[in-house]
Amino acid sequence: MAAPDQSTSPQLPQVLILKPPHVFKLHHHLFSQRFHFLRAWESPLPTPHFLSTHAHSVQALFCNAYTDITADVLTLLPSLRFIVTSSVGVDHIDLVECRRRGIKVANVADVFTDDVADVAVGLLIDVVRKISAGDKFVRAGFWASSEFQLGHKLGGKRVGIVGLGSIGFQVAKRLEAFGCIVSYNSRTKKPSVPYPHHADVRELALNSDILVICCALTDQTYHMINKEVLSALGKQGFIVNVARGAIVDEKELVRCLVQGEIAGAGLDVFADEPNVPDDLLELNNVVLSPHRGVFTKESLWNSYELISENLEAFFSDKPLLTPVLNE
Amino acid sequence: MAAPDQSTSPQLPQVLILKPPHVFKLHHHLFSQRFHFLRAWESPLPTPHFLSTHAHSVQALFCNAYTDITADVLTLLPSLRFIVTSSVGVDHIDLVECRRRGIKVANVADVFTDDVADVAVGLLIDVVRKISAGDKFVRAGFWASSEFQLGHKLGGKRVGIVGLGSIGFQVAKRLEAFGCIVSYNSRTKKPSVPYPHHADVRELALNSDILVICCALTDQTYHMINKEVLSALGKQGFIVNVARGAIVDEKELVRCLVQGEIAGAGLDVFADEPNVPDDLLELNNVVLSPHRGVFTKESLWNSYELISENLEAFFSDKPLLTPVLNE
Repeated sequence: MAAPDQSTSPQLPQVLILKPPHVFKLHHHLFSQRFHFLRAWESPLPTPHFLSTHAHSVQALFCNAYTDITADVLTLLPSLRFIVTSSVGVDHIDLVECRRRGIKVANVADVFTDDVADVAVGLLIDVVRKISAGDKFVRAGFWASSEFQLGHKLGGKRVGIVGLGSIGFQVAKRLEAFGCIVSYNSRTKKPSVPYPHHADVRELALNSDILVICCALTDQTYHMINKEVLSALGKQGFIVNVARGAIVDEKELVRCLVQGEIAGAGLDVFADEPNVPDDLLELNNVVLSPHRGVFTKESLWNSYELISENLEAFFSDKPLLTPVLNE
Repeated sequence: MAAPDQSTSPQLPQVLILKPPHVFKLHHHLFSQRFHFLRAWESPLPTPHFLSTHAHSVQALFCNAYTDITADVLTLLPSLRFIVTSSVGVDHIDLVECRRRGIKVANVADVFTDDVADVAVGLLIDVVRKISAGDKFVRAGFWASSEFQLGHKLGGKRVGIVGLGSIGFQVAKRLEAFGCIVSYNSRTKKPSVPYPHHADVRELALNSDILVICCALTDQTYHMINKEVLSALGKQGFIVNVARGAIVDEKELVRCLVQGEIAGAGLDVFADEPNVPDDLLELNNVVLSPHRGVFTKESLWNSYELISENLEAFFSDKPLLTPVLNE
């Protein structure tokens, strides 16, 4: 066994980590009292070599959204029966292959829902009312000598929510308190929801002043916010993305922002994180956030508890708390 | 008559402006179709000299929050009968002297209420979830190499509203949608309000994670947020000010922020605008806004209409639309 954690007992159930999730770094002492972690990232071996040498018998894997769990990775883990991810999204996990291999998958479900919704609204107010831009203006010492540009009123703005899952719904609830007029796009109309539904996202953009992207990244939503949708949103339109960068055609978004074809954007996610397109760094009509929608001290603590409880449920053969795939 | 505006008819009612309000600069063409403006700021004469030479017969004055209408100014305007200010606050006008002289005063009432409430919530989310700080972090290129600090969850936070007038009430309504727990301080308990009342602002601070200052500046509220109140708020506490800088003991606030005695602040107003204390410019736990709470294109248009209609009401001897002092 390579580099076992001496602080933990070998009797504890074994869990593989390829790259440490944020919540693991924060609460690794607590995690290590409950599980014995195989720390692939600490090994000098290349990951495939480490897995084939040391992880042959490992049954559980703990990952985050930045670790691709591909069919190739799964092939090197023949005993794997459970994956828990510290994220809400599971687009980094090959679910088809997991199903084929009988591997259960759990995420952290709604732990981060409110935090992501809060950041979506924060980014929206920020870009529409120019709060970060105002902060830069004041700090640069411009206030005494020049006029700060005006922002826009939120009340009465038509906000289109792309993906009315739990996050989208919480965004809508918050924005109603500001007097915004909410409608949404999703594959199917939600029967219990009071907002108008648009089956077509371009139709939603045509009828919105602001689009807030809250849907999961899937084959269907990849680059769904494309040139046509951005053009339908138009020159006075704002876009907020707290979902995944790849839902938007980022090159087209950057072009629209640079050329003034949309009014502004508040972005917590990007196509190639942590890399942000250089052109965005110079723009005054964007607010850039380092994918921190989900990260608060409080919600990370809740996710620590949920991840631990899912792992314990798996090892004691009890029902998972927040299953995504429960074969 | 010095420097009359040749584009306007001398038959239009005469209105004095000492320094041009923002809304006047933006909509001066429209204003000038309805009134003839005496533009003191364009004269080479010192203001007192200009007033005693040219404004002896002027009946109406249009000002903003940055123009002090003192007893000395009023003495130079013996015919003055009406002041309209483009602000909500009227602390820059000597109301006692106005009453003594029988001068009516109007403000813009609730035109900016929603916008100020929106900025209060925007600053609150921004400082608690570190949005502007995150934007700086990304733009500085730190994302790839370092860990961005965590923000705090909004849900469950106890927010104390200082001054539950129309703005404070709109802030409370918005924050309820985020799961915040609202209580408030005001001179008297509001009978129709569902939130707990604290008669003492220090008591409110002791029971709050976040204070949002929404009250008017008066002799009673000057430096009301002092060392004791900030100390009661404590190290984990945040403060948001969208009211007036002088309600807070700014030196003490800066000291608390620098020394970590409170967690952070979102400030749209300062004691000596446009001057911001140098120490604040370097801090990562503050969001600084150039007193733009009230300024959106939409609300400035509404204020243009309201100011014009108040002036027309005065000149045609009809009731003012939004009187503050109606002697």
